[in-house]
Amino acid sequence: MAVPAAAHGARKMENYGRFLALLASTLLVGFLSVILSLVWVFHYREGLSWDGGPGEFNWHPVLIITGFVFIQGIAIIVYRLPWTWKCSKLLMKFIHAGLNTIAMILAIVSMVAVFEFHNAKNIPNMYSLHSWIGLTAVIFYSLQLFLGFAVFLLPFAPVHLRAALMPIHIYSGLTIFATVIATALMGITEKLIFALNRPAYRESPPEANLVNSLGLLLVVFGSLILWIASRPHWKRPPYYYTSKFPLVRVLLI
Amino acid sequence: MAVPAAAHGARKMENYGRFLALLASTLLVGFLSVILSLVWVFHYREGLSWDGGPGEFNWHPVLIITGFVFIQGIAIIVYRLPWTWKCSKLLMKFIHAGLNTIAMILAIVSMVAVFEFHNAKNIPNMYSLHSWIGLTAVIFYSLQLFLGFAVFLLPFAPVHLRAALMPIHIYSGLTIFATVIATALMGITEKLIFALNRPAYRESPPEANLVNSLGLLLVVFGSLILWIASRPHWKRPPYYYTSKFPLVRVLLI
Repeated sequence: MAVPAAAHGARKMENYGRFLALLASTLLVGFLSVILSLVWVFHYREGLSWDGGPGEFNWHPVLIITGFVFIQGIAIIVYRLPWTWKCSKLLMKFIHAGLNTIAMILAIVSMVAVFEFHNAKNIPNMYSLHSWIGLTAVIFYSLQLFLGFAVFLLPFAPVHLRAALMPIHIYSGLTIFATVIATALMGITEKLIFALNRPAYRESPPEANLVNSLGLLLVVFGSLILWIASRPHWKRPPYYYTSKFPLVRVLLI
Repeated sequence: MAVPAAAHGARKMENYGRFLALLASTLLVGFLSVILSLVWVFHYREGLSWDGGPGEFNWHPVLIITGFVFIQGIAIIVYRLPWTWKCSKLLMKFIHAGLNTIAMILAIVSMVAVFEFHNAKNIPNMYSLHSWIGLTAVIFYSLQLFLGFAVFLLPFAPVHLRAALMPIHIYSGLTIFATVIATALMGITEKLIFALNRPAYRESPPEANLVNSLGLLLVVFGSLILWIASRPHWKRPPYYYTSKFPLVRVLLI
């Protein structure tokens, strides 16, 4: 009991130092992306408001980058944090589902902001590839969250069903995450073309370079999350936790 | 010897029927994407030419979709085809590297087309997020091809180095592939905004719907390739082939 539980979990992890360095880089790139989205809307655009004007539109990039990219990314790798290996699997599932729920709510609010902005300005909705793929991604994400909750969190699904669906859950999760980042890149492209005028996007004003850099950071963030999530030796060890309640232990493996 | 070698390989594959159905869907979606890109440039745009005009630009989407998406996708899953399991690993490496080389050449030619078009029209190069990420992807792709050739095709690298680099090679390959598709989606977004005028993109003319559908197909194609490439039970079995020459067998495992 002299060794803290966190260090205990960390000691069990292969290449712990490399994991820490990658995690720190991921968090740094993620935070920097959120900050750049705020610099974009406050320094170069109209800030944030909820009045049908450009300030309402601006919630869209800020909430997508904060929720649908950053928080979703953390939700994906939350089982990999060795300090959490002493926590029960049930608690970790709640954190995973909770972070994804927050991301989904922020994504939906950010879509409402765009629809209200479009309606106030008589701009049609859902005409662009960005909107087609973005809406598809939100629908699949919600479906993934609902099915994940029903199969993996509720205690009804039998173990063989959980085992059969887990590879699909992981694949869908990572593919939706990559699609969300691709959609964000399309959104950035659209917005810079529409919003920049004298100087235009093609003249590379400082705003264009800042937001292009934000797009690059999103790709780096996504790549780091996918690397961490796909290293088999960084998986949470099975049966690592011990619940005080044997029934809980059986149900939630 | 009565059983054809192809059927022999196929019989060894788990869920062979499901693999065939997925492969057929992937090829269908891939071919359809190439055809839609041709319909786009021939029916709605200025066709293909090499004169600095819009017809030269049009090589860009056609070659990217044919080479950098479709051929790269096939190159990624070529080891999974059970009919090839009787072929030597060396032959398969040549096919994998060959397809990727073709994809790289087509990607570079397609970039030259855009640069020449821009220069002829005095449009700046390399200002957009699409161009930043696209050029980065081509550079990483070329690096991946060069390193893959040096480490896995040439017979000099020791087995432990090959084993250590293989997970990185696979991860980089899949991440670059996903990034290429994201870049294509940005390119489609840009082109539809710039080219559509009376009716504009936001008025959803038939061309916009056709090309948006092409974008959706690219996402489906990418998702299918990533699914096929990430199923461990569809991997080419190790040591499946037998070379007549023991030295070759040792070198090329």
